Amino acid sequence: MRYSELFGKTSRDFPKEEVAKNAKLLLRAGFIDKLMAGSYTLLPLGFRVKEKIENIIREEMDKTGAEEILMPLMHPKQIWNETKRWEYAKDVMYQFKKDDKEYALSFTHEEVVLDIVRKRLSSYKDLPIKLYHFSTKFRNELRAKSGILRAREFLMKDLYSLHASKEDLDKYYFKVAEVYIKIFERLGLKARMVEAPGGVFTENITHEFQVLAENGEDSIFYCEKCDFGQNKEIAKVKKGDKCPKCGGLIKEGRSIEVGNIFPLGTIYSEKMGIYFADKKGEKKLAWFACYGIGTTRVIGALVEVLSDEKGIVWPKEVSPYEVHLVGLNHKAEGVYEKLKGNKVDVLFDDRDISAGEKFADCDLIGIPIRLIVSDNTQDKIEWKERIGEKTELLTIDEVLTRLH
Amino acid sequence: MRYSELFGKTSRDFPKEEVAKNAKLLLRAGFIDKLMAGSYTLLPLGFRVKEKIENIIREEMDKTGAEEILMPLMHPKQIWNETKRWEYAKDVMYQFKKDDKEYALSFTHEEVVLDIVRKRLSSYKDLPIKLYHFSTKFRNELRAKSGILRAREFLMKDLYSLHASKEDLDKYYFKVAEVYIKIFERLGLKARMVEAPGGVFTENITHEFQVLAENGEDSIFYCEKCDFGQNKEIAKVKKGDKCPKCGGLIKEGRSIEVGNIFPLGTIYSEKMGIYFADKKGEKKLAWFACYGIGTTRVIGALVEVLSDEKGIVWPKEVSPYEVHLVGLNHKAEGVYEKLKGNKVDVLFDDRDISAGEKFADCDLIGIPIRLIVSDNTQDKIEWKERIGEKTELLTIDEVLTRLH
Repeated sequence: MRYSELFGKTSRDFPKEEVAKNAKLLLRAGFIDKLMAGSYTLLPLGFRVKEKIENIIREEMDKTGAEEILMPLMHPKQIWNETKRWEYAKDVMYQFKKDDKEYALSFTHEEVVLDIVRKRLSSYKDLPIKLYHFSTKFRNELRAKSGILRAREFLMKDLYSLHASKEDLDKYYFKVAEVYIKIFERLGLKARMVEAPGGVFTENITHEFQVLAENGEDSIFYCEKCDFGQNKEIAKVKKGDKCPKCGGLIKEGRSIEVGNIFPLGTIYSEKMGIYFADKKGEKKLAWFACYGIGTTRVIGALVEVLSDEKGIVWPKEVSPYEVHLVGLNHKAEGVYEKLKGNKVDVLFDDRDISAGEKFADCDLIGIPIRLIVSDNTQDKIEWKERIGEKTELLTIDEVLTRLH
Repeated sequence: MRYSELFGKTSRDFPKEEVAKNAKLLLRAGFIDKLMAGSYTLLPLGFRVKEKIENIIREEMDKTGAEEILMPLMHPKQIWNETKRWEYAKDVMYQFKKDDKEYALSFTHEEVVLDIVRKRLSSYKDLPIKLYHFSTKFRNELRAKSGILRAREFLMKDLYSLHASKEDLDKYYFKVAEVYIKIFERLGLKARMVEAPGGVFTENITHEFQVLAENGEDSIFYCEKCDFGQNKEIAKVKKGDKCPKCGGLIKEGRSIEVGNIFPLGTIYSEKMGIYFADKKGEKKLAWFACYGIGTTRVIGALVEVLSDEKGIVWPKEVSPYEVHLVGLNHKAEGVYEKLKGNKVDVLFDDRDISAGEKFADCDLIGIPIRLIVSDNTQDKIEWKERIGEKTELLTIDEVLTRLH
């Protein structure tokens, strides 16, 4: 892609009114646009990052045997009444009336997925059922000052699973927990699983996936030695305590929640009548859990955690492009064609502006590898990574070998 | 994929209350679920068809130089007031108030995309701009009796383009028109471009892409010889007339609209202040057009047009799976593994039910190629296409060669 043709260039005019680092940098670097408080468009660069994040999540979901679907975003009141959440969750939901019918926008999908399942579940042989989708969520957040970390409209991956027994649910639940840690690792985030409250979902203990971050909205207590952790809201330990699991030291930290899993048990099944016949033919309630990853929130978390004073730093796996080619003479065109011909995903700054401006844009945009073609590099190409000062002069073949 | 593990099996229980052929067959075959009138979930099979349709459209959009983005679905009233469509289009829009703020759900995205563009457009060098997204649309249709052909919530690809001159807009507009015909061909639909009214979008003539279909909601007049056509609502010809373009015979037919393109000109730019500086530095209005393809509607159109009395018939390019393997003895497991090992996208009916039931499900689901492994086929595999009666006995290697 030629940067001259890319829609959504870097700009010092943005942002207006934003206070969150993630939104400031993403707006300035041309990844997002702001429609109103808590509502953003993904511009081409941001869209590419989202696609890469979703593809990693999709791969890992599929490996657990989950199947991808797509559920509606506008729901009838009556489905929310079945669990009483029309009333109970009304602060967070966008509810409205049209032609005497009442609707709510999706702030989550438990009721809808259970309605789909109950029409099709009859025997224990139909279980387990594991369904996921990438979808839009609407939540009426009182404050929307954290950029894409807490938007009113945002993207999320939801997984829902139903099981014939608590044992089977627990087994899958903790398997997904492991898969989540792996997903966040692949996305470039070190997430910790901590015990957390259930909000408008459940009175049970749930598990959040938290990434330590100075500007995080959450606080967690965690063990410096093992994987023990609790959200401050429900913590039974405090800073300086001994870890109840391993005896290590408990620390406190600000953090960003990037995922949350809920072992909902049978309470939703009871309310919505989700039954199956077991091996003896007896009618039983299905065991239910849900699992979320905030996909746009992951973008925000990556920017909060990994950026530096010069701009964004994308991990390789989610970077909008593999390399950023800075062309400072006419030879750059040939290198661009060669890279493209070898299927390298390259952003080529072909503009007629100063080298300094181009380098500043590279730093702001945050693609992990920068290639420079200038009179100084002669027939070679300068390779420099976004992090670190080291530069190397390589031939095009050496560049290609290193990229593959 | 093992059919025994697939969520969303065939069912004779569906549909309740549906009158449209597309919804009946898609519900029965397990492609969709119905949440309420005009609102459907894409189950795993339906989701796969949607993905294939989107990938074809994406490929063709990218080739025109368009860039993919993702815009929000909930919009502030003020953005719709800029073009006066908050009032003008209020029948079709879902509008609501929350905490004293007024919002509408996306029934289209002209206002939002123009807001994004005007923050970033300054010079003729920034033009043309071509942005597209796959997105959810909400339209308050009075009647929602046509299944996924006229849903209240549905999926659509929108493309928006801005240009420095009418000439440049026209050039791209008719290029996209050609690309649309090609896309529909790849999707297995023979679409005709016809002149049409602009609805709540424009007073200009627009162009619809119509597929002839007995149960279509639209009526068109078209030339049996050339590509001339007009939507009945604005037609200046009638059945039996001579074609004004080539002298051929004008015919009348029911049809399904699968796409619509709108040469909007400068009227939106005027209302929303979309200016750029031309070569002489003079302030000019940008030329604007939009282009839509109803992706879920395409699924419905394919079912309406191609299905037969036994069920759905998917074109190869959008079929949820490449082949449907019917296993009637233990050897089928080995064939399934071999197909998977060779990256064949296969749905394997591994259930312990009768051959007759399995064949009926094949016909209903509509995957174009059926492979049967039974005692009758011995060490070979029976190859039968969804359309036609011919059967052939092939070795696994012959099957693989034919598939690749």
